[in-house]
Amino acid sequence: MAGKAFFSVSMSLDGYIAPEPVPVEDLFTPEKQDDPDVRRWMAQWMELQQWVFPQRFFRENLHLGDGGEEGRDNDILRETHLRTGASVMGKRMFDAGAQSWPEEAPFHTPVFVVTHERRDPWERPGGTTFHFVNDGIETALDQAREAAADRDVRIAGGGETILQYLNAGLVDEFSIALSPVLFGAGTRLFDHVDAASVALEPISSEATSRATHLTYAVHRR
Amino acid sequence: MAGKAFFSVSMSLDGYIAPEPVPVEDLFTPEKQDDPDVRRWMAQWMELQQWVFPQRFFRENLHLGDGGEEGRDNDILRETHLRTGASVMGKRMFDAGAQSWPEEAPFHTPVFVVTHERRDPWERPGGTTFHFVNDGIETALDQAREAAADRDVRIAGGGETILQYLNAGLVDEFSIALSPVLFGAGTRLFDHVDAASVALEPISSEATSRATHLTYAVHRR
Repeated sequence: MAGKAFFSVSMSLDGYIAPEPVPVEDLFTPEKQDDPDVRRWMAQWMELQQWVFPQRFFRENLHLGDGGEEGRDNDILRETHLRTGASVMGKRMFDAGAQSWPEEAPFHTPVFVVTHERRDPWERPGGTTFHFVNDGIETALDQAREAAADRDVRIAGGGETILQYLNAGLVDEFSIALSPVLFGAGTRLFDHVDAASVALEPISSEATSRATHLTYAVHRR
Repeated sequence: MAGKAFFSVSMSLDGYIAPEPVPVEDLFTPEKQDDPDVRRWMAQWMELQQWVFPQRFFRENLHLGDGGEEGRDNDILRETHLRTGASVMGKRMFDAGAQSWPEEAPFHTPVFVVTHERRDPWERPGGTTFHFVNDGIETALDQAREAAADRDVRIAGGGETILQYLNAGLVDEFSIALSPVLFGAGTRLFDHVDAASVALEPISSEATSRATHLTYAVHRR
């Protein structure tokens, strides 16, 4: 039985999934941490993801230490992880992540990277293997579906990759953790959505103290 | 005891509170109803407000006929109406509304219109009186507060007027009915929000089958 293709992101109330970009390498360069743009980026990112960082599942999975919250937000993170049998991501998300994930990358499944770069599979400790797919988003999804078997495929990101899949009619369902913050600028999730062809069916809407978790099924109009 | 200043709008999941504009007079001209832009505007508006139109309170208040739904969405509309002791609106909302409201305008309270036009108060049957305020948004709010006594003041719209009040730090609380629809284009609520000075505190988040009703308190950063 084939699983679903889904995505799951945190979004500000005004529709942003990331602050105005700064060079990715600056975020991981110690001497850049006092740069005003880097500080602004980090502060906004922390606010957007404030429902994630304190959670026990997140901390354990990223090797950030023991302990953490164990309420509904934690359950949602764990459930999202457990339903995912394989992930698909764009090249830019992979490049940024490669600088920030621990050696034991946090996926623990196959990950299919849509890229023009030809490269052999890259196996990490802990069960994550990155596969580099050179012939488009549909092929990457097909390969991910096969790898996921009866579990679901997560379109992990970034925003442009998610929108390509959504506009191509290849997303079955998505979840948004709506954070109580306004960005005013940054990367919008739904810019360039093909609104005339995407219809939404509300599946669930669940509030925690930190976010409102919205899930929609996607249909073609 | 002074009430709160609040606004309450319907918003698409991608942040729009109105479709891409068409000339207001076209919406109310019978021979324009088959114009593709008018049809598109109407279809999007109906989807955005689909949680409102079937409700008994809305139908009775707009004199659209008896009957209608009486669930939580209906209660939310009635509660919003009952808490409102006076409204403030911009000139464009007033001009558009004057073409669409029934003679018994649906406010049944004083309404303060922020405008450069000098005009005597306009009293309508049913308790609505429009007052035309020529010296800015703060004066309009002061007058509305006094008229509302211990009830709340609703910043009724449109979007630009709401944002002026929000950015000026004059909004205490707001509610958004998040509709399960993507617009892709139109009038965004939070474009030009002064995100660096507006902090949100989640008050409530309540899902119905038709929308997710989000309420936030506003604080200065």
